[in-house]
Amino acid sequence: MSGMPSLSIGLVLALSCAMPPAAAADSPRPAYAWATTEVFDVSRVPAYEGRHDAVHARIDADLAAHVAHLQRWVRQRSISAQDDGIDAMASLVADDLRALGFSEVRRVETPGHPGVLGYYDAGAEKTLVVYMMYDVQPVEDNWQIDDPFAGSLVENEHGTVLMARGATNQKGPQRAFLNALDAMIKTTGTLPVNLYVVAEGEEELGSPNFGKVIEPWVDRLRKADGAFFPMNIQRPDGSVSLNLGVKGIVYFELESKGGAWGGPARSEVHGSVKSLVDSPTLRLVQAIASMTTPDGNTITIPGYYAPVTPPTLEQQRLINALATGADDAAQQRSLGVSRWIDGLTGRDAIVRNLFEPTLNVDGLWSGYTGTGIKTILPHVATAKMDSRLPPGLEPDDAYRMIRAHLDAQGFSDIALRPMSGYPAASTSVEAPLVRSMLGVLNKYGATTRVSPWLAGSAPFHQFTRTLDLPFVFGGLGYGTGAHGPNEFMLIHPAAGVKAAGLADIEKSYVDILHALAETR
Amino acid sequence: MSGMPSLSIGLVLALSCAMPPAAAADSPRPAYAWATTEVFDVSRVPAYEGRHDAVHARIDADLAAHVAHLQRWVRQRSISAQDDGIDAMASLVADDLRALGFSEVRRVETPGHPGVLGYYDAGAEKTLVVYMMYDVQPVEDNWQIDDPFAGSLVENEHGTVLMARGATNQKGPQRAFLNALDAMIKTTGTLPVNLYVVAEGEEELGSPNFGKVIEPWVDRLRKADGAFFPMNIQRPDGSVSLNLGVKGIVYFELESKGGAWGGPARSEVHGSVKSLVDSPTLRLVQAIASMTTPDGNTITIPGYYAPVTPPTLEQQRLINALATGADDAAQQRSLGVSRWIDGLTGRDAIVRNLFEPTLNVDGLWSGYTGTGIKTILPHVATAKMDSRLPPGLEPDDAYRMIRAHLDAQGFSDIALRPMSGYPAASTSVEAPLVRSMLGVLNKYGATTRVSPWLAGSAPFHQFTRTLDLPFVFGGLGYGTGAHGPNEFMLIHPAAGVKAAGLADIEKSYVDILHALAETR
Repeated sequence: MSGMPSLSIGLVLALSCAMPPAAAADSPRPAYAWATTEVFDVSRVPAYEGRHDAVHARIDADLAAHVAHLQRWVRQRSISAQDDGIDAMASLVADDLRALGFSEVRRVETPGHPGVLGYYDAGAEKTLVVYMMYDVQPVEDNWQIDDPFAGSLVENEHGTVLMARGATNQKGPQRAFLNALDAMIKTTGTLPVNLYVVAEGEEELGSPNFGKVIEPWVDRLRKADGAFFPMNIQRPDGSVSLNLGVKGIVYFELESKGGAWGGPARSEVHGSVKSLVDSPTLRLVQAIASMTTPDGNTITIPGYYAPVTPPTLEQQRLINALATGADDAAQQRSLGVSRWIDGLTGRDAIVRNLFEPTLNVDGLWSGYTGTGIKTILPHVATAKMDSRLPPGLEPDDAYRMIRAHLDAQGFSDIALRPMSGYPAASTSVEAPLVRSMLGVLNKYGATTRVSPWLAGSAPFHQFTRTLDLPFVFGGLGYGTGAHGPNEFMLIHPAAGVKAAGLADIEKSYVDILHALAETR
Repeated sequence: MSGMPSLSIGLVLALSCAMPPAAAADSPRPAYAWATTEVFDVSRVPAYEGRHDAVHARIDADLAAHVAHLQRWVRQRSISAQDDGIDAMASLVADDLRALGFSEVRRVETPGHPGVLGYYDAGAEKTLVVYMMYDVQPVEDNWQIDDPFAGSLVENEHGTVLMARGATNQKGPQRAFLNALDAMIKTTGTLPVNLYVVAEGEEELGSPNFGKVIEPWVDRLRKADGAFFPMNIQRPDGSVSLNLGVKGIVYFELESKGGAWGGPARSEVHGSVKSLVDSPTLRLVQAIASMTTPDGNTITIPGYYAPVTPPTLEQQRLINALATGADDAAQQRSLGVSRWIDGLTGRDAIVRNLFEPTLNVDGLWSGYTGTGIKTILPHVATAKMDSRLPPGLEPDDAYRMIRAHLDAQGFSDIALRPMSGYPAASTSVEAPLVRSMLGVLNKYGATTRVSPWLAGSAPFHQFTRTLDLPFVFGGLGYGTGAHGPNEFMLIHPAAGVKAAGLADIEKSYVDILHALAETR
């Protein structure tokens, strides 16, 4: 399968990449002026003080049933790339919402997999949109358990974990959120906020139809106070990295093929004719090379850096905080990399990572790629490339500048095939929803690092732009293995493990909803 | 299989590429001064006048048996890439030489397939070395006959043909040559020249051990008067393109991998880290791009064009002749190409084709090459490349200059892995062996175009340099399909087809040996 940069991958990178600090002066990229040395101090956000003891007690009492709900969700296969269990999972989500008392629940057909919309009318002042993805990645053969869809509880060094495809990405935290709703409704008869659920079954495919899923209710959704995506973002040591957005992306293919400009148009020819016949492969190589400096690290497409929004004072404060104690070497080790580009460290690396539009070759192929020797002049060469877009650089503009650059360099024959494109998304750390989240994290004693966004991409512009809402993704809880074998979510932490177990995760969701309801 | 640019492929290109004419003035490559407008006139080489009627009559009388010999050779499988029938074919060649009266016949073991050496002592003044390859290419499923090793005689538009793997590449012409020897020996009791046969079973693999095959007799072989490779080089219209040599080649891989310089060393990483992590793929792209001008057509490696030997007066005369009536458009159509590089035509194209060292990408791969989207930053990128070497540019020097260029451009971390390398080979049109060949071609009324060499590569330096002998490959006869389905050699031409049939091919071989014997 070939899913989009899915959120969970992006998140892993966020955890490992959003920590390095000061910017290279000799680079042609913009040098961002730094106006403040102030540091955003998470600990100055007041810890949430509301008490919801009865609901919390209910969670403790019902915990076995709550674990069973998570198991029920992961046991229902829902591999979007293989259309395996999708329909049944969509029904399961809809049925669970109805069972909780959502007054409106509807299935939305799309050209791909269906979406599910639900509304819980609490008669409350505040309204929250909750994003869910009900699909999962395909599974591999190399799991330590026999069946990644069995919903197995397994003991490991972190404690008792639910090991299953979808355990942490994303069924576990999502059903934990619904468990929290269940405890609130059973205890108080309602919720502190009105609640929309917008669920899609194509996140692992790049959310191509998510706009269609929310379309029927888009005007209603716009009136909400924020959007939230339940996610395990804690580490085993209890600390949290909260990312207030994502980069956008354009993902495209470039292809050079023989034609009127020259080169073999029909099929490969013998390599010895290179003296007289243009090489589409060398043409593609030259075209790609023209897009960066010789080190491959600075984009030479005219105007490409210009639209990027410079760091605001708020973002500078967040980055100043991130730069304190950034451990570049640890992140490099985790990636198997000896150094960052240009030897950057600390704040410089953070700024580069967040405010840099990237240009990357994801794949490249032409001609003979087997063993030994074959002497051909291939008639076609293809590259898959992506460019990550910080806020300010729009996908349409990126595509336009790339095409204009290729044309200006004489490569108008090279095909540019857009495969994906969406803009960045970001939310202010001062948004009430984010403040509520930070207050609750402080209540539970998590050490929280806040980044303006992460370097990975996800189509969260649907919330921040289409719906014009503050959007935050996170929550207590620890899990790993998304997209790989042995995916798990921690349920009961072992002694010494600081990450929250299922009960505390659900309690924190209760507190977040109340904190949001209580904001003025 | 992955054989070297085999002779038969090279030859096809020679037929289609050695005809275009005048050199581009705006190119940084050397502009070769042109000192003569004289045209080499093949028709002024006296037609061979010797009469060998008794031998020729014997050929006619034995023709059915001679065809059967060709069938016997192609029926013995000998696919070098699959080690299929190799041992039996080596024995068959040795046995046939003994049966003809070769007084010394020996098998030479090598690290690969064995060679066969034979010597026929005619007590003559002149001595000829005859090169043979007894191996063939693998076969495909898409032949029009059931069994490519059945030795089938088939009727097609050219007449009766022997359709089989190896029919024209190279068993047919080689056994036809032995048939000619048989007729001479049966008629006259001996041969007009002493004769060495040097046969290898690895031509389709790039002749990696041919040097070892001739090693035992190298001092004896050096004393010969020339070396000859029997080959069907006629077209159906009876015309012949005689190429007096080949280009050399270096074939190598370039590989960029993450390491101390930067980039991911262990495995691919997520594409979103490109802002901080160097890309081995972009590095390889930049390294390859640095080796040519932006159009991919002029090599920018310092000194690369300098060692090429400029066209001699003799070569200029040959090229002037080739330029007369060159049909670039027809060649372009046959290759599926709209134009030659720089819009070259005529003499300019011929000079570029023959005197240009090329740089070609045969294959290129990195990262994700499947369908859809996968966002990774690959840790390794690889290219297969070749450079064709005209006389003067030595493989060792080519490798040295490529390495020095990469180092000077800052790409010392990029691995350069030589996979093959040998120099060009060429023989003067004035060599007695070539004059004998041309005289015989004129006797048989063939319209002959003579090129100093062809743009393809073969390790014929073993003859022109290791043995220091004039070397010519050719002869009457028509065949096609080498390396593909439905390979055939024309045996009995249909009415109107001007190419020689088996009888005339064998008679011309008789005449060539006598013509060589008679040179002073």
